[in-house]
Amino acid sequence: MTVTKVKSNSLLGLKHLTQSEIQAILDRAAYYENHDKKTHDVLNNKFIANMFFENSTRTRTSFEVAQKRLGAEVINFSAAASSVEKGESIYDTVKTLESMGIDAGVIRLKPIGMLEEIAEKIKVPLINAGDGNNEHPTQALLDLYTMQKHFNTLQGLNVSIIGDIMHSRVARSNLYALKKFGANVKFCAPNNMQTRDLDVEYVSMEDAIKADVVMMLRVQLERHESGMLRSAESYRESYGLTVERAAQMHKHAIIMHPAPVNRNVEIDSELVEASNSKIFPQMANGVPIRMAVVERALS
Amino acid sequence: MTVTKVKSNSLLGLKHLTQSEIQAILDRAAYYENHDKKTHDVLNNKFIANMFFENSTRTRTSFEVAQKRLGAEVINFSAAASSVEKGESIYDTVKTLESMGIDAGVIRLKPIGMLEEIAEKIKVPLINAGDGNNEHPTQALLDLYTMQKHFNTLQGLNVSIIGDIMHSRVARSNLYALKKFGANVKFCAPNNMQTRDLDVEYVSMEDAIKADVVMMLRVQLERHESGMLRSAESYRESYGLTVERAAQMHKHAIIMHPAPVNRNVEIDSELVEASNSKIFPQMANGVPIRMAVVERALS
Amino acid sequence: MTVTKVKSNSLLGLKHLTQSEIQAILDRAAYYENHDKKTHDVLNNKFIANMFFENSTRTRTSFEVAQKRLGAEVINFSAAASSVEKGESIYDTVKTLESMGIDAGVIRLKPIGMLEEIAEKIKVPLINAGDGNNEHPTQALLDLYTMQKHFNTLQGLNVSIIGDIMHSRVARSNLYALKKFGANVKFCAPNNMQTRDLDVEYVSMEDAIKADVVMMLRVQLERHESGMLRSAESYRESYGLTVERAAQMHKHAIIMHPAPVNRNVEIDSELVEASNSKIFPQMANGVPIRMAVVERALS
Repeated sequence: MTVTKVKSNSLLGLKHLTQSEIQAILDRAAYYENHDKKTHDVLNNKFIANMFFENSTRTRTSFEVAQKRLGAEVINFSAAASSVEKGESIYDTVKTLESMGIDAGVIRLKPIGMLEEIAEKIKVPLINAGDGNNEHPTQALLDLYTMQKHFNTLQGLNVSIIGDIMHSRVARSNLYALKKFGANVKFCAPNNMQTRDLDVEYVSMEDAIKADVVMMLRVQLERHESGMLRSAESYRESYGLTVERAAQMHKHAIIMHPAPVNRNVEIDSELVEASNSKIFPQMANGVPIRMAVVERALS
Repeated sequence: MTVTKVKSNSLLGLKHLTQSEIQAILDRAAYYENHDKKTHDVLNNKFIANMFFENSTRTRTSFEVAQKRLGAEVINFSAAASSVEKGESIYDTVKTLESMGIDAGVIRLKPIGMLEEIAEKIKVPLINAGDGNNEHPTQALLDLYTMQKHFNTLQGLNVSIIGDIMHSRVARSNLYALKKFGANVKFCAPNNMQTRDLDVEYVSMEDAIKADVVMMLRVQLERHESGMLRSAESYRESYGLTVERAAQMHKHAIIMHPAPVNRNVEIDSELVEASNSKIFPQMANGVPIRMAVVERALS
Repeated sequence: MTVTKVKSNSLLGLKHLTQSEIQAILDRAAYYENHDKKTHDVLNNKFIANMFFENSTRTRTSFEVAQKRLGAEVINFSAAASSVEKGESIYDTVKTLESMGIDAGVIRLKPIGMLEEIAEKIKVPLINAGDGNNEHPTQALLDLYTMQKHFNTLQGLNVSIIGDIMHSRVARSNLYALKKFGANVKFCAPNNMQTRDLDVEYVSMEDAIKADVVMMLRVQLERHESGMLRSAESYRESYGLTVERAAQMHKHAIIMHPAPVNRNVEIDSELVEASNSKIFPQMANGVPIRMAVVERALS
């Protein structure tokens, strides 16, 4: 897979960005966080299409707020309301919106490898808002931003990512980016949720919660064969961040989760808004991160 | 149920508002009705989320027009397209939008008691756009506005509310508000659509249509057990506002309905746009009412 | 059917427009095509509702881009998310939006004859975005625009329209409009997709591809009884524009399709973006055409 034909201001993943390219996005987000409540004029007259072939309230809304804060015109559509249902290809839909004169597209889809293929054929910059089991770069960027804001540096930071690694684009994007910053990333997952194609160590739950950052992943109940899936209760017992386990975390450590959370499955409900939880601050940070990414796409 | 922790510019219901607080909203709506066709700048840079966990074209659209006339940025989402389907809690969704920096939220949901609970935990003002079987304050406000515009005063006005009282948040909000203004409210409903928890008299259909205001409710076919529900035809015969019954109304009386109407069930099709029907004027009045309510939430 | 009661700046179809009225729209679109990337202020403070009782990503999005380029406020809704599901009539929904103060409506619906009926009762101008099996005027306008741009004139142009004529509002609108400009239109369709109520000659596939414009229609798989429908493969063999057939087209001829395409059913995938294909340029042309039509509705 080569990225040479993709426009340089597209954001398909973090794997191929340098540390300084990522830091530039984080720095621009910090600027916007301090000017967050004002609407800017930098993207006036620009049209951005949010093309969600897989639904996500949270991510779509975060992009929409970011785009409107920048003064852009926003065109939303989701697959459920689109002709994709009628068998139209995702490529044709993206090409259609390009033909209509949009200046950039935000895209979320499931089929593996398709985003890269589309981006090579499309002239406008594309931003990945969730790409199958591959990458979810804006989520990882807001995660890095949240960690950097809290710990000042990512160098040497111990980050545990716990849960359904196999299907997690969040885990992948975080791994790629955190390693560039010198963080130590470890995974923790039941056997049937592990993948061996990533260069990372799996540790026990007991060890995983001793990190500086304990990042829980959503159990993608809908993605597993029913036979493979442990019950929610047994998952919680073995891999959930329970109140008991959270009590054993370092005092300085933080809890993260890309959301939406399954309360009392991968994380106990009482922990979601605990003082060491960054779950809602992550969502707040998503807006300036996406402002930076969208602005970059159109610059 | 206490409302002390809810922000004072939220609008969860009319039960706890005073007559003068309600009148202030009606007066502000009158101002906007006279300036309706212009777009105002009063909410520039403000973001409002319309969070519909229960669908409603009419109410969502009315709020959206109102918000855009005030110059606000609007973020829409409905449950059908949201991760609520995936089991995410309504509270988490509202909290997520708050984290993203919205300035106010309009919310419509089904679960009883949840709105109050959410509003106590959320910092931004919330506006109730339909709350289970509890209240629907903007509907009642536009109803009062319509009556006051037509009759000049609500004092002593005889208002009959006819239909599925038990499941009607419209009936409840109207009852609470109209009583504060000295109106005489009576209900009329088949036995299985009555509720005894409200201090109001039930009258016969014959008596009900002798009021100044004959307000028909939508039969919520979808909310009744099939066994409980009378057929549409037998409902019409017993409780519908037929052309024959309408002919027995006072000459000065008006017909109201919160819409959408089931034509030829609770009201005959010929009456919907009759000269004494206020059904579409009610919808027109909804826009300035919601402008007043949204402006109040953000003031 | 009479159109006398419909507002003159509504656009329900092309059948009753004169050639000069159509040319005026095409000319205005040309103006906007040259100013396409700028957002205009001509419809500031105007509210337009896109009322899609039948889904269409492409057409709705094209209208939305056009409306926003003109500076209008856009209210979208689709039937899937609306109370139409609850049995509300389409007329009531349109009347509701009119009551809320919209200045114009774009409407797409299925029931035959309903658009005309609604337009006679509604005071704001309506634009047809797809009307059952009747007309789809903005599609035909963008088709004419595309042909005129390529060939300079429509006079004497040979246009073949191939596919499911019986259910095609695109074929109808193109036929009505092209004849006014002196073009020679021929149809080609399997027997069960022909209609005899239009004054036009049916030709063989062999003859059809010898035109200046070879316009393929989408096979509306969803509209045919399963028993009537030939398999996709046998349809392609008999009526698809295959690579082999395309090789027999005139060198100067162009391929058109209203989209979305069924790749490898009515048209081979390799042809969609061939050098003589106007499929994506058609979509690009849709935006200035709809700008012209929307501006006309509100002038």
